[in-house]
Amino acid sequence: MNFQARQKRLREHIATTRYDGLLINHLPNIRYLCGFTGSAGLLLIEEAGSVFFTDARYDTQAHEEVKAAKVVIARKAPLEALGDFIASRRRRSRGWDIGIEAEHFTVAEKKRLTKVRPQGVRLKDAPSIVERERMVKDSDELQRIRAAVQLGATLFDRALKVIRSGVTEVEVAADMELTARRGGAEAMSFPTIVASGKRSALPHGRASAQPIVSGAFVVCDFGVILAGYCSDQTRTVWVGPVSEKARFAYESVREAQQAAIETVRPGITVGEVDEAARKVLCRVQLGKYFTHSTGHGVGLEIHESPRVAAGMKTVLKPGMVITIEPGVYFPGKWGVRIEDMVAVTDGGYDVLTPSSKQFVAV
Amino acid sequence: MNFQARQKRLREHIATTRYDGLLINHLPNIRYLCGFTGSAGLLLIEEAGSVFFTDARYDTQAHEEVKAAKVVIARKAPLEALGDFIASRRRRSRGWDIGIEAEHFTVAEKKRLTKVRPQGVRLKDAPSIVERERMVKDSDELQRIRAAVQLGATLFDRALKVIRSGVTEVEVAADMELTARRGGAEAMSFPTIVASGKRSALPHGRASAQPIVSGAFVVCDFGVILAGYCSDQTRTVWVGPVSEKARFAYESVREAQQAAIETVRPGITVGEVDEAARKVLCRVQLGKYFTHSTGHGVGLEIHESPRVAAGMKTVLKPGMVITIEPGVYFPGKWGVRIEDMVAVTDGGYDVLTPSSKQFVAV
Repeated sequence: MNFQARQKRLREHIATTRYDGLLINHLPNIRYLCGFTGSAGLLLIEEAGSVFFTDARYDTQAHEEVKAAKVVIARKAPLEALGDFIASRRRRSRGWDIGIEAEHFTVAEKKRLTKVRPQGVRLKDAPSIVERERMVKDSDELQRIRAAVQLGATLFDRALKVIRSGVTEVEVAADMELTARRGGAEAMSFPTIVASGKRSALPHGRASAQPIVSGAFVVCDFGVILAGYCSDQTRTVWVGPVSEKARFAYESVREAQQAAIETVRPGITVGEVDEAARKVLCRVQLGKYFTHSTGHGVGLEIHESPRVAAGMKTVLKPGMVITIEPGVYFPGKWGVRIEDMVAVTDGGYDVLTPSSKQFVAV
Repeated sequence: MNFQARQKRLREHIATTRYDGLLINHLPNIRYLCGFTGSAGLLLIEEAGSVFFTDARYDTQAHEEVKAAKVVIARKAPLEALGDFIASRRRRSRGWDIGIEAEHFTVAEKKRLTKVRPQGVRLKDAPSIVERERMVKDSDELQRIRAAVQLGATLFDRALKVIRSGVTEVEVAADMELTARRGGAEAMSFPTIVASGKRSALPHGRASAQPIVSGAFVVCDFGVILAGYCSDQTRTVWVGPVSEKARFAYESVREAQQAAIETVRPGITVGEVDEAARKVLCRVQLGKYFTHSTGHGVGLEIHESPRVAAGMKTVLKPGMVITIEPGVYFPGKWGVRIEDMVAVTDGGYDVLTPSSKQFVAV
């Protein structure tokens, strides 16, 4: 990972703002900029260099992992060490403006920071600059994301072997998660969704102790974290004798998903991607059952920018990676969703998820 | 779960403050107060009643889960629906003060909320009132915590069967996590730590692809989430021929942990619990290798109040549940940590974790 290059881009960005430095507290942003994977730290990026503050638990780990930043191990809280660090420097007559990540610093953290910062240092609410940089993945990141998606897809192969009427949702999830771990996953990217029967109509139905029943879909939405990067995939399987309505809903969602995928290319807005999926479902009178947005960015975090939703204006660029995951849900009956991860390429799109989307009944 | 009683206690508390209502955005606090388990929502608690705002993905789920609050499904963001709701009410001449959770609202969220709130509504930074209430568990919670701890302990039984030289850390973690799922766990409470060889000296060494080596400890720190409540446990196992130094370190940590446990009773401060562990390790010249605090509260979250750390003044009360987890770490060599969950009872303490702490070498 080229942390120097990432920090350089950020410095170029900061140079165009009114900030003298940017203070990062969002852990995925810290990992992106200097490689630290632990659970507590603060990274200060300035023109002259970067300093990373963490606590004694992470002494060895920070010195091993952190690149392109000086490491300071705080005796108490990292925030106080940061205050001391800033205070130790020569004062400048015009003062010092530090941007803080407004989407991540809590109201209380900002207040504490305001107390420890020396006079002449002003804290400014900064927008999500690092998240914007992170939208476009570099080649190291794309390689890791591909590896995560490939491993993630093997979980569905496993699920197909165990899903059947009578097996509980958590048993299916357990087998999928074991496959993930055996494949080297550090963790799941979110609590595995295995939603069967009426629960398949819950867009976020985590695996429960409920046994899978015949006459409904099982929605499997799952992802792994491999070398820091997330995968995200949904496949939906019918259980029992197939009804016309189920097959129609499935094929409509598949068509909507395909239509959205085919719009993906540099220059298109994410709102247009969303619209393409929605249009197909509206045409077959299923639009009102598609109750969520079409997708989101994926990388170090399972949900990152851009949101792929109605009216959103973010323009696709090569290197962006998004999910495309339309679904329809009939409360009290069942639901269906299909989701792939898609990379934006120079010429259009690359569907990263390898699993088949053919209708499957077990 | 008696959500009415919890909200009543909170209302009594609010009545003593300058707030007319309290706006909750921290999801574990929302779950605690009204039962919602999803990933997006806002709960407004006022004298006259409570209103829960979420989005369309959670329509069915919110109506099923939420107790003791009116449910509003927002067309756009819950924050905007909240703004509309407040604006729709009759204005009061003296205005309306709403406390917001300052430790959880981000700077940017507060700014957005400030924009959508009607004139006359003032936002006040509130301290962590709900977290303070949550420190003392009610009987429903204690029952769930006990069940989670019991299930969690079975993971170590499994680990003992698979830990041996040459097996990778993730293989051990995979088997433990499968045991968790098969036992009904919804998820792990944090990324499973299986840290072997030199990595055992990293207090937070998540399971890696490294094979376990002889001549060092394996630190296993793991927990499950069962019915919403977390378990947290650490056991440390030696691999290979035992050295005197390893056994001495292990027994010292065990003694320190036992000493801390035995201080636990109502009226004692958490700082005194920390001190008891630290004193034992200092006496045998291992104090400087105990680089973290002694423990933390556990419940709906894996880390919650109180912090059991040097100098902390929180006074133990019956119903509190904390971890006690001293450890010593020799960077580049190995480390050892032992952790139990302990409930404060009327008469003293109850060690919830059933696993043996005898020195084990495999």
